[in-house]
Parts: sequence; structure tokens; C-alpha cells
Amino acid sequence: MLLNWNAVQNGRVDNNLLLDSLIEKATQGSTKTVAVAAAEDSEVIKAVIEASERNLARFILFGDQEKIRTLLGSKYKDVKIVHADSTTASAELAVKAVFKKEAEVLMKGNLPTNIILKAVLNKDYGLRTGNILSHTAVFEIPDINRLMIVTDAAMNMTPNLDQKVQIVQNAVSIAKSIGIALPKVAPLAAVEVINPAMEATIDAAALTIMNQRGQISGCIIDGPLALDNAVSVLAAEHKGIHSEVAGNADILLVPTIEAGNVLYKSLIYFAKAKVGAVISGAKAPIVLTSRADSSESKLYSLSLALCCAVD
Amino acid sequence: MLLNWNAVQNGRVDNNLLLDSLIEKATQGSTKTVAVAAAEDSEVIKAVIEASERNLARFILFGDQEKIRTLLGSKYKDVKIVHADSTTASAELAVKAVFKKEAEVLMKGNLPTNIILKAVLNKDYGLRTGNILSHTAVFEIPDINRLMIVTDAAMNMTPNLDQKVQIVQNAVSIAKSIGIALPKVAPLAAVEVINPAMEATIDAAALTIMNQRGQISGCIIDGPLALDNAVSVLAAEHKGIHSEVAGNADILLVPTIEAGNVLYKSLIYFAKAKVGAVISGAKAPIVLTSRADSSESKLYSLSLALCCAVD
Repeated sequence: MLLNWNAVQNGRVDNNLLLDSLIEKATQGSTKTVAVAAAEDSEVIKAVIEASERNLARFILFGDQEKIRTLLGSKYKDVKIVHADSTTASAELAVKAVFKKEAEVLMKGNLPTNIILKAVLNKDYGLRTGNILSHTAVFEIPDINRLMIVTDAAMNMTPNLDQKVQIVQNAVSIAKSIGIALPKVAPLAAVEVINPAMEATIDAAALTIMNQRGQISGCIIDGPLALDNAVSVLAAEHKGIHSEVAGNADILLVPTIEAGNVLYKSLIYFAKAKVGAVISGAKAPIVLTSRADSSESKLYSLSLALCCAVD
Repeated sequence: MLLNWNAVQNGRVDNNLLLDSLIEKATQGSTKTVAVAAAEDSEVIKAVIEASERNLARFILFGDQEKIRTLLGSKYKDVKIVHADSTTASAELAVKAVFKKEAEVLMKGNLPTNIILKAVLNKDYGLRTGNILSHTAVFEIPDINRLMIVTDAAMNMTPNLDQKVQIVQNAVSIAKSIGIALPKVAPLAAVEVINPAMEATIDAAALTIMNQRGQISGCIIDGPLALDNAVSVLAAEHKGIHSEVAGNADILLVPTIEAGNVLYKSLIYFAKAKVGAVISGAKAPIVLTSRADSSESKLYSLSLALCCAVD
């Protein structure tokens, strides 16, 4: 049984979501379409079938038509397939489909990430917005009865302040799409005070004041916070931190990719957390599943993307 | 019941230790003495009493004699107390006691860390060695039937390669003291390949080759490894990594303090791990417990220090 940890600690819970609720939320409203680049892969088709069986979305599968047809089997003969001779071509066609609003979500199949991202960033038919792309992961952690967003654990290596602003904005957008009305953002550092030798703390201070000045809106930012201060009210109180975010963070902003990756993997491998993730910041959410992801994780990522997609 | 995860995965376990075994190990051999600076604190005295009840060590308590006497109560009237008029004076006296080999372990009581470290680094009576000081934490993680060492999560902010070498050497020394004969060291990064833009991966490569050339001995180093590759044989195999360390790491070397702190806090707050930690690299191990640490954690840290102390 999942304990309502935050409710126990302070009686106030802003975010009472679980990953399964995203699957449900994704099936509500109009049915969206997912463009899958290089879909000729058994793991990818398995994810497509699983999503179709739950009526999550419609799919357009780009890639080797014969191989895709064979993998799909006779049950899904109505799924739209568009032939492409190469992974590069399938990426281009899939991105174009989203560009032309024939699909609302882009999904990576069996091709290198850099190829699909190159198509996403294409100046003519790509999906750029004013913001950088960033990786946003949504975790369901045992004994914590709310979703925890971690960003950016996989895309931006050592983001400067400007990039951190955009990473936060992308994550806030994701948070609102899944029902967190006013996300609380904790820019993480090793300590909760400013140390001139720790750039992470200085950037955290800047983000906090930008939020107070209205430069970053739609969320509450308070940092720097060490991870325990961000997720535990008791730990925060012990340090004498007075903050709306401390103990109740919805979004954990990591200072570097190494900190993010270590948190991500620690949650999966040690805390037995579940996760769904998307690339945000483009005109449409991008699902970058890999063979290492579990079927469940692929489903969560797809559901997350569908929740965030704009009709 | 703790699963022997590694044994299940590959039938080979080099390190089958748990934190409770450190308490047992610490009571074996000759009884060592712990010098406690600024001991006039209820939490510190509680830890001293708990350790004494388990016959873990002898103590010399430095600080306000009257206050210490009152906190100890009548049961421990034989414990040696040395009066000091200030925290700075108590730190100096405690360090000098270790310098003069009247004690084998130094423990911080109720005083700021920088004050005790200043005394440790004193040129006349301090405890410097050729190496830098570093923080070494030993974790017991649910479902993982071996101890996992994380360094440096609290002391060195952005260590350069030379400092990482010393941090590794300190941790290897700790590992051997607790019974890991040939520690496997994983220099962590966000990826397991070299990325010229990711200094963590380049330093990891350097450490690996230094180990192969005999420049760092007494351990096996292989990196870079992402955390999952370091602790999961399946994850490592999936990436095609062939390495003695992958999946079996005893020591996780983090590239920055932020990555280390996030891993440390994530293990405690999300994975419900237990921990003991010391500052290594001085002539004697230093126990830096804080009020936030649980009684259990203080006991583990003390036991760890006693295992590592040299008679």
C-alpha cells in the first residue's frame, strides 16, 4: 500500500498522481496519432500493439513496410504503414507527419537517437520552438504518493543558467499537462545554502529570484535544496528551511547530467521506482524508448507524451 | 530477506558484507580509543553510551566537563573527560590526543565541521598524510547483499583527476579494512563511453588506465560506467560491456559532489538504505556525525571508523 507520505507529514498534498493514472488520462479526450520512425523492430511493435489494445492512440508506422507488416500480424492490418528505405528517411517522414499535424506525438523506433533528433531540428520541416530540447522523466517511487519529475537526466550535459530556465519551463509544461496545477520546482545542489565555489547553488538562487520577479512563471521555485530537503519536510525543518517547495517538490532540477543520471538509475535500480519519460521543448512530445526500457516503462512514456500532446 | 542479487545474476559475489557485521568486526581485536571533540551534546553522549554498552571502544570526551558529566550520568563515571573552554580548544585537544596516539579515532561532537577540520589540518599537531581528505560512505541497500561504497558525496566539490586518484585510494583503503580484499571501483559518468564533452568520462578512462599501468594498485578500476552498468550485470551485458567491475562494483566514484549527494540522499530517502560514513585520508579515521543522522547511522559510522583505525 502506498503511504501518503506527504499527507502524513504535513496534511497537504498538491500532487496525488500515479503513473497508471496517466494511461487513463491519455485515453480521455480525442484520440491522438503517434508517428513512429523506424518501426521495424519487435520491441517497438510490441509497444504499439499494447498501446492499441488499450485504445491509447492511433499509429502511423514509418519504415520497412514488409518487416513492419510481418511483425504486426494479421490482427492489426488496418494500422497505417508508410514505407521508408532507410532509418534517415523514416525519421524525416515521421517528423514531417508531426510537422503537418498528421500526428501529435513522435516516437523513436529502432534507430540512433541522433538521427531522429537531427530530423527534429531540421529548419524546414522540423519541430523546433523557441526552447531547447530537454529530457523530462516522471517517476512513481514506492511509499511516495505523488509523481516526482526529474530533469534533465539524459540530454543536456552541463546546462548554463539560460538553459536551466528552458529546462524548467519544459518540465513545468509537462507537469501541468499531467494535472499539477502549480508545480513546485527544486533546483538541486549538494547543500541548501549558497557556496560561491558551487555553481549549482548560484544558479539555483538565480532561478529562485527569476521566479519571484515573474521571469519564470506558472510554478514556484525555491533553491538551492539538497535532495533530502526537497522531498522530506522533516529534513527541511531540521535545517531550518522555510519554503513552499521544501519537502513538497514536484520537479527536481539536477545541475548536471551526471547528477541526473545517477538519480534516475538509483531510483530504478535501488528504489524500484517506475518511470515514463519524454523529450520536451519541441512542437510535439518525443518518446525515445530504448530496448533497455521495460514494456511498462514504454507504455508510461507513451501515455505521458499523449497527455502532453496538443491537438 | 535480502536477496543475493549478484549471486542470482552471475553466481559470483566478492563482498557479502552487511553493516551489522561492521559492528561485530569493530569489537574484535584490541579495544581502540575514540577522541570526541565538543562532547557536551545529548545526541553525541547518547551515541557514546550506545557504543560503550556494546563494548565497541573506549572514549576520551573533550569539552565542557560539567555538562558532559551531567549528560553521562552516574553509570559512566569512569569515562575519561578532558575539560576544554571552547569548541576550538576541544577540537585541538582531541586532535592532539590522536596525534599522540592516545586515541585511534577522531569523532566530531557539537561543533562546526570546519573547526575540527582546521585542527586536523594543523601543521604542528594535525593528522595530515600525503593524501587529501575525502568522504567515504558505506551503504547497505535493500535487496543487495553486499555493501556499496560511495565517494565523495560530501567533501570534495569538483575533484580534478589527481584528487580523484586520492579519493579512490582512500576508499580502497576503507574497503580493505572492512574485508573487501580486491575492491572493484566504478568511476561513474552519465554514459559508459567516452564523450569528449563529458569530463567525467575522460577522467574515468584515465583512472582505468592508471590502474592497468600499476599507478593505482590494490583494486580493479573500470570506467566510465553509468550507475546501472556498475551495479547490474544485466544492464552491463545489454550495453555489451565486458568488465570485471560492471555489475559488481564495490566502490562507486562520483564525478562531483552534486552527483554524490543526490545518490547518497536518494539511497536513504527513496531506497531506504542504511549508511555509515567516515572522513578518510587523515592519519586516523574521522567520524563526522550530525544531529540529522539516526542513532543507527552514528553507530555504523563509528564501527566503520574503528574497523579502519590503525593500532
